[in-house]
Amino acid sequence: MKNPCLVIGLMSGTSLDGVDAALVDIAGSGTDTRISLRHFVSVPFAKDVQGELLRVASQTPVPAGVISHLNFLLAALYTEAVQRVCEEAGVASSEVDLIGSHGQTIFHQSEPAPFCGRMLASTFQIGEGSLLAENTGVTTVSDFRPRDMAAGGKGAPLIPYVDYLLFRDAQLSRLLLNVGGIANITSLPAGSALEQVKAFDTGPGNMVIDALVRRFTNEEQGYDTNGSLGASGQAIVPLLEKLLANPFFEAHPPKTAGREQFGQAFVRQMLEHGQTARFEDLVCTATELTARSVAAAVTRFVLPETTVHQMIVSGGGARNAFLMQRLQLALPKTEILTSEDLGIPTAAKEAIGFAILANETLHLHAGNVPGATGARRPVVLGKVAYGDNYRRLRGITQP
Amino acid sequence: MKNPCLVIGLMSGTSLDGVDAALVDIAGSGTDTRISLRHFVSVPFAKDVQGELLRVASQTPVPAGVISHLNFLLAALYTEAVQRVCEEAGVASSEVDLIGSHGQTIFHQSEPAPFCGRMLASTFQIGEGSLLAENTGVTTVSDFRPRDMAAGGKGAPLIPYVDYLLFRDAQLSRLLLNVGGIANITSLPAGSALEQVKAFDTGPGNMVIDALVRRFTNEEQGYDTNGSLGASGQAIVPLLEKLLANPFFEAHPPKTAGREQFGQAFVRQMLEHGQTARFEDLVCTATELTARSVAAAVTRFVLPETTVHQMIVSGGGARNAFLMQRLQLALPKTEILTSEDLGIPTAAKEAIGFAILANETLHLHAGNVPGATGARRPVVLGKVAYGDNYRRLRGITQP
Repeated sequence: MKNPCLVIGLMSGTSLDGVDAALVDIAGSGTDTRISLRHFVSVPFAKDVQGELLRVASQTPVPAGVISHLNFLLAALYTEAVQRVCEEAGVASSEVDLIGSHGQTIFHQSEPAPFCGRMLASTFQIGEGSLLAENTGVTTVSDFRPRDMAAGGKGAPLIPYVDYLLFRDAQLSRLLLNVGGIANITSLPAGSALEQVKAFDTGPGNMVIDALVRRFTNEEQGYDTNGSLGASGQAIVPLLEKLLANPFFEAHPPKTAGREQFGQAFVRQMLEHGQTARFEDLVCTATELTARSVAAAVTRFVLPETTVHQMIVSGGGARNAFLMQRLQLALPKTEILTSEDLGIPTAAKEAIGFAILANETLHLHAGNVPGATGARRPVVLGKVAYGDNYRRLRGITQP
Repeated sequence: MKNPCLVIGLMSGTSLDGVDAALVDIAGSGTDTRISLRHFVSVPFAKDVQGELLRVASQTPVPAGVISHLNFLLAALYTEAVQRVCEEAGVASSEVDLIGSHGQTIFHQSEPAPFCGRMLASTFQIGEGSLLAENTGVTTVSDFRPRDMAAGGKGAPLIPYVDYLLFRDAQLSRLLLNVGGIANITSLPAGSALEQVKAFDTGPGNMVIDALVRRFTNEEQGYDTNGSLGASGQAIVPLLEKLLANPFFEAHPPKTAGREQFGQAFVRQMLEHGQTARFEDLVCTATELTARSVAAAVTRFVLPETTVHQMIVSGGGARNAFLMQRLQLALPKTEILTSEDLGIPTAAKEAIGFAILANETLHLHAGNVPGATGARRPVVLGKVAYGDNYRRLRGITQP
């Protein structure tokens, strides 16, 4: 296998706002992985694409053909993101060795439920890997989550493996917090082995805040810039307490959350109980909900087992100054940093993560952390579509 | 790469009746491929699974979660078919080197149409490859069609490449006819190179016949056994002529057909125009429609370019004696054989085909025939999920 490799990681998250592309130099693999971010772009989806994705991800019934078309359409949009990140970085796409594409989740149910006479859990990401490989000429790994679920895991979270490679420390016990649509934490006790890593979703990240901002600005604003809306409001305490009583927060890890728990129905419940409330008070309450549910998860499930010296925040939420402030108040004894403080831009972390996971797959290394997903064993994630570059990537010389 | 390999091909076709599994010894690759079928099983789907698949493939709107669950459920059923073919053959699944799984097509649109402001064609097979690889421990190639479509092809037919490997002849010009739900032909002129191979769908195979039989037997019978129902009826000539006037039959190849053209709506049209007709006359008319549309395709699109010494029939239709008789009448100058006469059981041919295509993918050989699909170029098909056996398969010794 070629070493070092130039890898592109693609991530489009539950917030459905667009696709992130990170162009990363990766040397080595496993615990010897060393990375350097060359460039990062975030390409928003057009409104009609976002509308179709929201419709499908909200489980509105659609013909199979709509999902089939979205699978191909997203791959075309991902291709454009690949071209964009290459162009801006002054790199020819023929120089890229590998693409790791998370895809867009349109369904995720980690608890088995009856279906056609069987108990089934399943997860579903779209953004056709074959199309990306053909369009770009670059070998592409996609569909990382199903393999973990096939091994008895919840299919999420997958970033803990990346957190372990990038952020583990011999002296400091660290907690990684990613605040995307959903918030999740990875616990990396000082000097820990991969087997000791634990991770789980803590509940809503930006998903509820964003939904409220979109609703009250008539879709003009997609998120609470810097947290200024939330900061101008006051938390509605009875509503906050009611929301924090959601049984998800008490459930023991491993656990995963999504639009199913904290999507439209959850926001509707907030609006019903806060009908007379000021908009900024609702946003403040949603922000406080994220901060408090993260802090509660740390207190309940992490601190009994390990100290926490540092909490390192990434994802869109790291740019919400009000959220960061509420987090610090809720966890006064913990030093709170952003991943940027350790050299990884907060917005790029997940996309970088899928570049690293693709590199691991090509090295036949498992990319899931059983302590994070609940899988029976570590497994090699994803499905590989061979690009025109595959022989060069593998150093294969015979025809 | 290990050589020879023991490979399982899995096929579940548009007839939605179950999954075929072929256990095949494959030596070599490309034009040096030599195969030997060890065992073949056909495992029918349970009624409720078939009902869900028919609902989804008929484009009834469903939540994305239903398709997500079916994707996992089918992989579980495919796993059982793998176990069954191994057990019956007295082979441990740990002896199997590779699985090639076609999956279940739930949407296929080869002509681009507007979608979210773009022109899009797409194809969609389910039956999660990652799950098959995890459940069986065997490296699995799945999703063969999207890559061809990404290269500008219609994503079908894919069996022509296999036909070329198995049936080409230096002296005899051969025509391969597969009669599954849809019928397709591959033309292999004597001594031809792969570039001269042409193939296309001719229209309905068993799809219309089966739908009529299911309807009139209240789902008790799934197909016309030996063609005895059709043989006992008389063709309704005005209706037959009306059906043969369908513009699909005149369209120039490459072309593909599916449930979109010859599914429920087509059968409804037949029933409306034959309301007073006897059941067996309708079945006879549908059988004649298949035979005549195949013959018309041969006359229109093949004979102007090459002679045809032999037509070799495979698929379920090869067991319909009445259909075989009507084909011979419609093409009096051609010797009509079944693939069984050349050593390939008719029912197993497509499953064997996907075993061979998976072997080609692992050898980094293209598996599409541009003259069949209309693709811009030959491309390596499918996505690879690494099984526990992958290092052994590749002869990789380092960790």
